[in-house]
Amino acid sequence: MLAVNYVGDRTMAVEERAPADLRRGEVRIAVAYVGICGTDLHVFHGDMDGRVSKPATIGHEMSGTIVDLGPGVEGWSIGDPVTVMPLVWDGTCPACRAGNEHICQHLNFIGIDSPGALQQYWNVPASTLVRLPSGVSLRDAALVEPVAVAVHDVRRSEIEAGDKAVVIGAGPIGVLIATVAVAFGAEVVIAEIDPARRATAAELGLATLDPSSVDQAAWVEEWTGGAGANVVFEVSGSAAAVQGATDLVKVRGTLVVVAIHAQPRPLDLHRVFWRELRILGARVYERRDFERAAELVAEGTIPADKLVTAVVPLTEVQSAFGVLEAGQAMKLLVELNAS
Amino acid sequence: MLAVNYVGDRTMAVEERAPADLRRGEVRIAVAYVGICGTDLHVFHGDMDGRVSKPATIGHEMSGTIVDLGPGVEGWSIGDPVTVMPLVWDGTCPACRAGNEHICQHLNFIGIDSPGALQQYWNVPASTLVRLPSGVSLRDAALVEPVAVAVHDVRRSEIEAGDKAVVIGAGPIGVLIATVAVAFGAEVVIAEIDPARRATAAELGLATLDPSSVDQAAWVEEWTGGAGANVVFEVSGSAAAVQGATDLVKVRGTLVVVAIHAQPRPLDLHRVFWRELRILGARVYERRDFERAAELVAEGTIPADKLVTAVVPLTEVQSAFGVLEAGQAMKLLVELNAS
Repeated sequence: MLAVNYVGDRTMAVEERAPADLRRGEVRIAVAYVGICGTDLHVFHGDMDGRVSKPATIGHEMSGTIVDLGPGVEGWSIGDPVTVMPLVWDGTCPACRAGNEHICQHLNFIGIDSPGALQQYWNVPASTLVRLPSGVSLRDAALVEPVAVAVHDVRRSEIEAGDKAVVIGAGPIGVLIATVAVAFGAEVVIAEIDPARRATAAELGLATLDPSSVDQAAWVEEWTGGAGANVVFEVSGSAAAVQGATDLVKVRGTLVVVAIHAQPRPLDLHRVFWRELRILGARVYERRDFERAAELVAEGTIPADKLVTAVVPLTEVQSAFGVLEAGQAMKLLVELNAS
Repeated sequence: MLAVNYVGDRTMAVEERAPADLRRGEVRIAVAYVGICGTDLHVFHGDMDGRVSKPATIGHEMSGTIVDLGPGVEGWSIGDPVTVMPLVWDGTCPACRAGNEHICQHLNFIGIDSPGALQQYWNVPASTLVRLPSGVSLRDAALVEPVAVAVHDVRRSEIEAGDKAVVIGAGPIGVLIATVAVAFGAEVVIAEIDPARRATAAELGLATLDPSSVDQAAWVEEWTGGAGANVVFEVSGSAAAVQGATDLVKVRGTLVVVAIHAQPRPLDLHRVFWRELRILGARVYERRDFERAAELVAEGTIPADKLVTAVVPLTEVQSAFGVLEAGQAMKLLVELNAS
C-alpha cells in the first residue's frame, strides 16, 4: 500500500509499505479521504518535531470503509462506512477518573502521537470508530472531525437560541464554529481581517466584519443594544484579538479560547473582573460531539461542497501543504483509495 | 455631627457638619464602626480621583443602628441593628434585565460614587439594609461586607465539600476567602510571599505556602495526587501570580479572578485550552452573599477577634490609613459613635 510520511524539512514523502498487523480490538480501514488541518501544517513546519516521531504518518480528519476486523471486535462489519474519533485515553489519570477522558492527562492523539490516516489501510482501535449516517458521502464525511471540534466549542459555550455570538477568525474552524452556532439558533458575526477569508465566509452566508476598519467594540455594542455578545469564540490565535475580545462580551458572558496560543497573551483581567466574565478553554471533542457532527454533515447543515476547495491525489500531498500554507484553500482533501 | 472626607493629597479631614436631609425611602443610621479596605486605600492614594468627587466621604464596610425612618420605609424600626449592602443599580441596563443587578452597567457603589459611612449619621436607601442576626456585636458586624465579598467569590467558584483550593494572596480578602472556603468544606492552602501575612494566616489556622521558596506547581501536584486544584483564587493582583496560577488548576478546574489588575496580564492561554480551564471574574456580591456573610460572622465562623487589628477613634483616621498602607494591620475599624 501507499502511505505518506512527514520526514522533516517541510517534506511529505510517499512510501510503499505493507499494512500494519491487525491487533486484537482493532479494525482495518480502507481510507477514502483525509483532510489536512492547521495542526498538520504545524507538523509540516517542524513546530511539533519534539512530539512526533519521524518518519511520521500524520492525518486525523478522515473517512473510510472497514475492510477487516481484528480479534475481539464486536458490533462492526466489513463494509461499514466510518470515521474515527482519534483519541485514546489511559482511563486512569485524574482527568479520566473525573469523566474528562477526551482531555486525558496522557492522551494519545492518533495522527500526531501515533500513526495517522495518510495511508491506504489504517488500523485503529474499534473504540475510536464513529458510524456514519446513511446517505452521507465519504467525501463529506471527511469533514466530520473538524465539525466535531466546532460542535464541542459551541456546546461548551452553552450558547442558546437567540444569543448573539462573535467568532474571531474565519479560518476553517472559525467558519465551522459560526455555522454550527447558527445551527444552534444563535445570531453570529465573524470578525476577520483577511479580505479573502471574509469573502469565503460571506459566500457561506455568514455575516462578517473587518476589525481593521470597523471599531468592533462599538459595532457589537450597537448590535446588541448596549449589552455585548453572549459568547465570543477566539479562533484567530492573535495577541491583538485576545486584547480586544474581552471588550465584546456582555456582563457574565463567555469567551471561549479555541485557538492555540503558543505564548502567554496579555488579557484584560480588569474587564474579566468588572463584568464577571467567564473564559473557557475548549479542546478536541467528546463522542457526542462527533455523533452530532456526523448528523450535521449528513443533513447538509454543513455546506461541504463550499468548504472543500479541492480533492487531491495521494501523490500531490506535498504541493497540497504548499497551497494550504499560502492560505489559498479552505479545506483540501487527499484521496487515498479512489472510490 | 462629625464626618471624614478624603480631600486629596493623601489626606483624610474631619469635618463638623449637619446630617443630610432624610429623603423618601431612606433610613438614617447612627454608624457604629467602619472598616477601611483596599479600595479606600486606592482612593486615599489618589488612584481613583477620576471617579470620586472631592471632598468625598468614603467608607462602605460598616455596622450601625437605625435612628430615623424616611417617608415610605416599611419593615424597619428605629433601633434595628443593621449593615448596608452598598449597591444601587438602575434596574434598566442589560445586566440588570438579565438578573445581574449587582454588576449593573451603571452601578452606584455607595462610599465611592456617592457618600459613604465615615460620618456619624448616614442616610441610605432602605433597600440596601441587611438585618443583623441577633447576638452579633456591632464591632464584628462591620466585617460582614468583606465577608460577603468572600462568600460571593467562593459561591461563584462552585467549590464543593472535599475540593482542594489554592488562594493566592493572604491579604484581608484572601484570608476571608480561605476561611469561607474551609467553611464550605474545602481543603485550602494560601500562597503568600510576605512572611508577616503568612504568619497571620497561620495564626488563623490556615495552611500556607511560600511561592518564593517552594515550587508551588509541584507542591500542588503532590498535594492533589497529580490532578491539580479544583479552584484557584487570584487575590494578589500580581502579574507573576497570574502567570503561575494556570499551572495549579486541574483539568476543567476553575480560576477565580478576584484581585483588581489595572494592566492587562500575560496569561497562559495554551494551558487554558489544553486543560479546558474555566476562568471566572468575581466582583462584589449579591444579597444572598450578604445574608450568608452575616450568618457566618454571627456564628463565629469568621474569627473576628483575630482579624480586627485595632479599633481607632474617628479623629485618628489619617494615621489609620498610614498604618494600613505600611502593611501593619489586617483590618482596622473606625469607631464613629462610641457604644
